[in-house]
Amino acid sequence: MTEKIAMALARIRTIKPVVLNLTNYVTMDLMANALLALGAAPVMSVCDEELPELLQIAASININIGTLDHAFIRRCHEAVRLAQQYQKPVILDPVGAGASFLRTKTAQELMKYADIVRGNASEIISLQGPGSKTLGVESSASTTEAKDSAIMLSRKYGFTTVISGPIDFITDGQREAEIPFGSSMMPLVTGMGCTLTAVIAAFSTVLDDAFNSAQLATLYTGLCGQSAAKRAQHPGTFRTAFIDELYAADVGEPL
Amino acid sequence: MTEKIAMALARIRTIKPVVLNLTNYVTMDLMANALLALGAAPVMSVCDEELPELLQIAASININIGTLDHAFIRRCHEAVRLAQQYQKPVILDPVGAGASFLRTKTAQELMKYADIVRGNASEIISLQGPGSKTLGVESSASTTEAKDSAIMLSRKYGFTTVISGPIDFITDGQREAEIPFGSSMMPLVTGMGCTLTAVIAAFSTVLDDAFNSAQLATLYTGLCGQSAAKRAQHPGTFRTAFIDELYAADVGEPL
Amino acid sequence: MTEKIAMALARIRTIKPVVLNLTNYVTMDLMANALLALGAAPVMSVCDEELPELLQIAASININIGTLDHAFIRRCHEAVRLAQQYQKPVILDPVGAGASFLRTKTAQELMKYADIVRGNASEIISLQGPGSKTLGVESSASTTEAKDSAIMLSRKYGFTTVISGPIDFITDGQREAEIPFGSSMMPLVTGMGCTLTAVIAAFSTVLDDAFNSAQLATLYTGLCGQSAAKRAQHPGTFRTAFIDELYAADVGEPL
Repeated sequence: MTEKIAMALARIRTIKPVVLNLTNYVTMDLMANALLALGAAPVMSVCDEELPELLQIAASININIGTLDHAFIRRCHEAVRLAQQYQKPVILDPVGAGASFLRTKTAQELMKYADIVRGNASEIISLQGPGSKTLGVESSASTTEAKDSAIMLSRKYGFTTVISGPIDFITDGQREAEIPFGSSMMPLVTGMGCTLTAVIAAFSTVLDDAFNSAQLATLYTGLCGQSAAKRAQHPGTFRTAFIDELYAADVGEPL
Repeated sequence: MTEKIAMALARIRTIKPVVLNLTNYVTMDLMANALLALGAAPVMSVCDEELPELLQIAASININIGTLDHAFIRRCHEAVRLAQQYQKPVILDPVGAGASFLRTKTAQELMKYADIVRGNASEIISLQGPGSKTLGVESSASTTEAKDSAIMLSRKYGFTTVISGPIDFITDGQREAEIPFGSSMMPLVTGMGCTLTAVIAAFSTVLDDAFNSAQLATLYTGLCGQSAAKRAQHPGTFRTAFIDELYAADVGEPL
Repeated sequence: MTEKIAMALARIRTIKPVVLNLTNYVTMDLMANALLALGAAPVMSVCDEELPELLQIAASININIGTLDHAFIRRCHEAVRLAQQYQKPVILDPVGAGASFLRTKTAQELMKYADIVRGNASEIISLQGPGSKTLGVESSASTTEAKDSAIMLSRKYGFTTVISGPIDFITDGQREAEIPFGSSMMPLVTGMGCTLTAVIAAFSTVLDDAFNSAQLATLYTGLCGQSAAKRAQHPGTFRTAFIDELYAADVGEPL
């Protein structure tokens, strides 16, 4: 595993793949810094007109519905259509699915075009249910409860699902993996989930298999979180340390 | 006081109240991180359609007009209407009131629905005056000059007013409090005022009295700033240290 | 040079000039913090209606097209018209020019009203070419390749051009300067270019000559980057250290 991560990172750092992000306003800064620290080239856009050009230079597209509105949703639908046309992987982060009808419905529509979907347990469960069911952003379903939803969604729609939590769970409907790294600091920093999704989008540009991309990216991010937590036990310093680790984590030992 | 802060923090950390933020684009990241470090659950939205659902799961709503436009203003009016219907406290940050007619007018309209209003001296003074009077964002009125405005506004509209400054002033029109903590680093970091308003919004979810919420939140934020300044004398490191303090300040001694 | 920087900084810290930023959503936070650390007073706006008032209180305007859309472009055109009327310097950052037709065309139109334009080599080259030529955001043209474009653009349109890179190049079409400071960490942090443009906008409020403003601001930013890199060899800690340096760099020695 360690070797595979190192090889993927080396390729990212050589190719500097453009990751196009249609994403929320809250965590844009952290996401861009995470992608730069990793070695990728983040591009953010809020404009329909430049999508065809940006999709062509992008190696993958990261869609995050954290601050959606109707213009954003329309842009995402156009983006996934273009991603299919240009055969670029689509990574979806259904932020807040379950908390509002619009978030649930939007995520359920966009996931049909996704190669990888990453969310917390509540978000993944809500993707399976009827669009109108509101679980609330603070509904703290456990990863165990969400596993069946993940497997069912992956089988039905053909994407790889990542459930973030104390132990991350990854499935493509056939294969399964559990990742026990990370840190209890991570939920105390805004955008750590969004950042994992972005890191997955970067890994997916240098690996052919969606499950492998999700697994290696989640593993690397978890290890970076774990290493950062050794240096920083408070959320402000942890955030800074985490970006440092994405840039230069030593993943040679813990695996 | 120390005990009251500790009790309020303990309740926030147990309940993890959802604070809904209709806020500016500049300081969203710091605000979300501050609320997470405190123990609350921040939600940001830029979408009218999901307001009724989000207002229902939110325990309070924080409105910050720092990057207002007409769509934002319309959304805020709908939000305060729903907040009244669902009886959720409204905390208002009139960023830049006095600097443009639109900011002044918007703040003056929204404050009628607010439980607590927090601004700097210039902003609070501008809320009292005719809508067309432009003081400018850099108008550096003193807290002393703004006290009368605060008392008059609180008496007329029934909200608690917080004036931020070297010595913070809090009034509900009857009671008054002064808080001499904080640090000279705070005005050098963008969003420290916005963050105080968000912290007040979090405290208001676990305390019944608006004046007490404002007082304890301002006290805690000031103490966190003071502690952070002991470790960090430059604005970059201060910002990080301040978030660390919100998570784990030792408030047992200085009071 | 050291003395000139110190004098400019002293004037910024005395006057606290308002810098109005029409800018992207990704790096707003860093930009605002950089301007505050420097001693200036940043204002961000996303609203047409308040432009006339904000332009009047602003000492300079910083336009950054990093997340442009049609409403943003319209607002920028109105802003440069008002900046001419009120004789406020316009500093333009053509983020992503060359990566999409809309970015290239928008930058080419707005630069006609600019006093100073700062971009990387690819962006500056794209300003010279036909609007339809797409170079891509990752096109890594060298500063040397872009020098001719910079000189030609400055001569044709009368603005000072700054090309950021390992060695920064500045020209007003007649004078030329090269600045070899900075750090290899800088391209790994999002918004370092945007921040340099904002620092230039701040310096332009206290100096009459655009070339001098650009040169001193680029020199100071480069020195701050160099100093920060001595303390921080990873991008997370570097970002924090850089803001600290903007606040209190010792520029007395290296020049």
